[in-house]
Amino acid sequence: MSQPTATLLISCPDSPGLVAKIANFIYANGGNIIHAEQHTDFATSLFLIRIEWQLQGFNLPREAINTAFSAIAKPLQATWQLHFSDTLPKIAIWVTKQEHCLLDLLWRNQTKELPGIISVMISNHSNLEAIARQFGIDFYHLPITKENKAEQEAKQLELLHFHEIDLVILAKYMQILSPKLVEEFPNIINIHHSFLPAFPGAKPYHRAHARGVKIIGATAHYVTEDLDEGPIIEQEVARVNHQDTIADLIRKGRDLERLVLSRAVRLHLQHKVLVYDNKTVVFS
Amino acid sequence: MSQPTATLLISCPDSPGLVAKIANFIYANGGNIIHAEQHTDFATSLFLIRIEWQLQGFNLPREAINTAFSAIAKPLQATWQLHFSDTLPKIAIWVTKQEHCLLDLLWRNQTKELPGIISVMISNHSNLEAIARQFGIDFYHLPITKENKAEQEAKQLELLHFHEIDLVILAKYMQILSPKLVEEFPNIINIHHSFLPAFPGAKPYHRAHARGVKIIGATAHYVTEDLDEGPIIEQEVARVNHQDTIADLIRKGRDLERLVLSRAVRLHLQHKVLVYDNKTVVFS
Amino acid sequence: MSQPTATLLISCPDSPGLVAKIANFIYANGGNIIHAEQHTDFATSLFLIRIEWQLQGFNLPREAINTAFSAIAKPLQATWQLHFSDTLPKIAIWVTKQEHCLLDLLWRNQTKELPGIISVMISNHSNLEAIARQFGIDFYHLPITKENKAEQEAKQLELLHFHEIDLVILAKYMQILSPKLVEEFPNIINIHHSFLPAFPGAKPYHRAHARGVKIIGATAHYVTEDLDEGPIIEQEVARVNHQDTIADLIRKGRDLERLVLSRAVRLHLQHKVLVYDNKTVVFS
Amino acid sequence: MSQPTATLLISCPDSPGLVAKIANFIYANGGNIIHAEQHTDFATSLFLIRIEWQLQGFNLPREAINTAFSAIAKPLQATWQLHFSDTLPKIAIWVTKQEHCLLDLLWRNQTKELPGIISVMISNHSNLEAIARQFGIDFYHLPITKENKAEQEAKQLELLHFHEIDLVILAKYMQILSPKLVEEFPNIINIHHSFLPAFPGAKPYHRAHARGVKIIGATAHYVTEDLDEGPIIEQEVARVNHQDTIADLIRKGRDLERLVLSRAVRLHLQHKVLVYDNKTVVFS
Repeated sequence: MSQPTATLLISCPDSPGLVAKIANFIYANGGNIIHAEQHTDFATSLFLIRIEWQLQGFNLPREAINTAFSAIAKPLQATWQLHFSDTLPKIAIWVTKQEHCLLDLLWRNQTKELPGIISVMISNHSNLEAIARQFGIDFYHLPITKENKAEQEAKQLELLHFHEIDLVILAKYMQILSPKLVEEFPNIINIHHSFLPAFPGAKPYHRAHARGVKIIGATAHYVTEDLDEGPIIEQEVARVNHQDTIADLIRKGRDLERLVLSRAVRLHLQHKVLVYDNKTVVFS
Repeated sequence: MSQPTATLLISCPDSPGLVAKIANFIYANGGNIIHAEQHTDFATSLFLIRIEWQLQGFNLPREAINTAFSAIAKPLQATWQLHFSDTLPKIAIWVTKQEHCLLDLLWRNQTKELPGIISVMISNHSNLEAIARQFGIDFYHLPITKENKAEQEAKQLELLHFHEIDLVILAKYMQILSPKLVEEFPNIINIHHSFLPAFPGAKPYHRAHARGVKIIGATAHYVTEDLDEGPIIEQEVARVNHQDTIADLIRKGRDLERLVLSRAVRLHLQHKVLVYDNKTVVFS
Repeated sequence: MSQPTATLLISCPDSPGLVAKIANFIYANGGNIIHAEQHTDFATSLFLIRIEWQLQGFNLPREAINTAFSAIAKPLQATWQLHFSDTLPKIAIWVTKQEHCLLDLLWRNQTKELPGIISVMISNHSNLEAIARQFGIDFYHLPITKENKAEQEAKQLELLHFHEIDLVILAKYMQILSPKLVEEFPNIINIHHSFLPAFPGAKPYHRAHARGVKIIGATAHYVTEDLDEGPIIEQEVARVNHQDTIADLIRKGRDLERLVLSRAVRLHLQHKVLVYDNKTVVFS
Repeated sequence: MSQPTATLLISCPDSPGLVAKIANFIYANGGNIIHAEQHTDFATSLFLIRIEWQLQGFNLPREAINTAFSAIAKPLQATWQLHFSDTLPKIAIWVTKQEHCLLDLLWRNQTKELPGIISVMISNHSNLEAIARQFGIDFYHLPITKENKAEQEAKQLELLHFHEIDLVILAKYMQILSPKLVEEFPNIINIHHSFLPAFPGAKPYHRAHARGVKIIGATAHYVTEDLDEGPIIEQEVARVNHQDTIADLIRKGRDLERLVLSRAVRLHLQHKVLVYDNKTVVFS
């Protein structure tokens, strides 16, 4: 499907007629729905839906859709996002010293697996600058110390705004973000080097090895104020055994981290993830 | 969700307004949709949807729904199935000598994992009759030889009709069904002791062992005239290695077969499977 | 391999010549090794080996092997276990109300997947007694209250000794064992209804659901004084998504628990598990 | 374990005393075994073993080991390979146009996951030459036509000999090798874009999509004269569903191919794979 599409991600209190009302809005304006999937959370009586339709033949101009849809959405007390498949989001990747997730994201972006424009790299170290240069990406070296953290985060936010960044990917960025930063820029995906909530905190592979686990994992999640407690987007696991050293666990973990982070970013960029109640609905 | 629901499984040529028309039908009659998922096959321009709504508050009596919906469906050239969650289908399990799939289905049925009424067992051997008796199921011993096959299949069909069977599960039934039988009773799920299409035919585990594969699998599919070529519902795999003997492969295969068959049957009984073009859409 | 074999599970401080010395012992007595696998834990300089040989043609009578081997083992400061494949261990299964793990163990024992004699069932409830009777197993109903716990555990220990039990399987036995009981009878395998160490403690599926995890798991481990912290034998996971209710998680969890517990028990009964440092080496 | 080790991969007819004789050889010369694992194929009465020991303290000079060991091996009719962990094999990667496997191998080689020296790239196209240059690898562009195939293969063999290549990795090299080439250079690992033996031949993803499979896979194997029928080293699978287009299958297939090929190459480079009877024993 290389023709442009529009996608609505909607959530509202459950009531009869929601699918009909939303589908009618698109049909009445000449749109052909190519993907519709809904979920009802009965515990909270919340209705969530992803609906995608072809823009070709749609009678409303793009800039008029939000206003037109609000006439439907307001009475339903709905919140919604509207996305166009040919509007590529601008992405900043934040790294520290490790390159495996970074390289994977860059390669997948080049092969069009990840539809977005990676325009900025920010790191608290400088060793990955050559990769940024090779891929033609602006690189900012912002070392973090206890003393300068607030100041550097202000610069980070400034860069995000200056470059009109839509999404930050923490690709093994080993600094904790302050609540203030997360509040001001909430669109951040992180990869956690462990199978959350197992072994949260430092040195998870060392602890998994000491515990003699038979399976390790990785978790990609949105960043919230509560460290490692944000909505989970994707997880994956791998088998390990007594022959695996800590170095082997770290090696297998790199593969998990690469896969899980790129899957989560792809789902986000395809507008398939809806967050509610510190959880995600992944329409896929 | 223990309240009764109705489910429509619909397929028709793709055109704008399908979701709206179908959702409107349910909304106009006071129904609250709790699950809606659609799929468009662009290669064949086919639209497929599963839509489930609560019967409580629905204004149409159950027996009137088909007629009422046909007014919508006819102009769309749609074919559809209508199911009610509290109408339990009647199931016949066909076996030969192996019990692992049978026992798993019976146990899952008892624990309400498989919503249906297992009322009949048919076997070409008699060794599993005691299990039928233990679970209070009618058991029919119909041995098959080259000479009596047509005659016995006629009896099988008679039994299916007499007991008003909706679904036949081949739980390691080691006889090939004639095209005639499949034509007259098309609702049959089979478990194939291999990862189709790898190693079709006889002794797949022996051949997988000789080949030194590192993964084995099992496949559950609807039965069609083409042996082992019917629409695939579910598949699963397991790792093996050089230490696994043929007996180990068969043992691991039993676990795969149990899991895959019960998952496929559950999906079918929840009306989540739509067949088209010798393939399935599994809404889950 | 249906001919009887002997298996030595040995651990000792690492030093040169260990494999040679142990293999020479078997060779010198006319034994043919059919499985040998060793592991060295370099962090603790510990050598661990599993060695299995055919008893046919072995010159030492069974009852003389331990004494003869001690001449080799003593200078190496080795600890070891000696097992014969045709000496079936006696097993007690402890349950509460849930039957899924119990039925799976019984069925696998019948099909010879689990080489042992299940001779006793102990439960703090009585609802599974009929199953015990059906399989010809002695059933003891020992209800547990705060007041009678010490007394009932004394009876449990008495039963284990009276029936000469070698292994206790906690197949969803929902009572915590006292440290005293574990100390007196250390051969206990438990299935934990969660992917340890994620969500330890009560209601793991409810907590996993609230957290919105994408993967759930189960863990089989030896029981130690530290609740749920004993050496892990086996783990397995399954994918879940936002459509899965808590009931679905529990249902998928049952399949995980059945599989993981039976795999762990099989590994134990084949003498493939060696415990050290609160971890396991699984030779397989 | 960064200290240098020696590894023997041995196969011979089964007989009593093999482990003892081999372990004695190492012990008698002062070696400390750090890994020993054996496998007996009872169907063919073949004994196979991998044994690895520390070279530090070993009394025999490296160049004398083969001769010394042949005194043990000859009477046993054994064939064996001797490898040293610090002797890095020289690797040639053959590609066509696709880069995903190539980049993965190069990156893993840089991070020391794949212990070898990638010194040559050969391609029948020129589009990946820039990558070779970036990594400082000699690149040879040898286009293949029906007419020049024999001639180009002669050049390929010449290059392998000139660069003293130990291992060829076909990283999506889309040309069939002639039996002559395989005979003259038998150390070749290939990645097959399918889960062998399912969908052998052309366009496997298109055929898997048409078949509606729920799982796809990839297979890494040694190359033999029989196309795609060589000994399997490693396999992996991924779930797909009706929403996955052919492009999605190809995308998911790329991840499988990258993972499976790199795992197989790593196992080979660690001397953990022994081939016999068109199968592999993978000691891991």
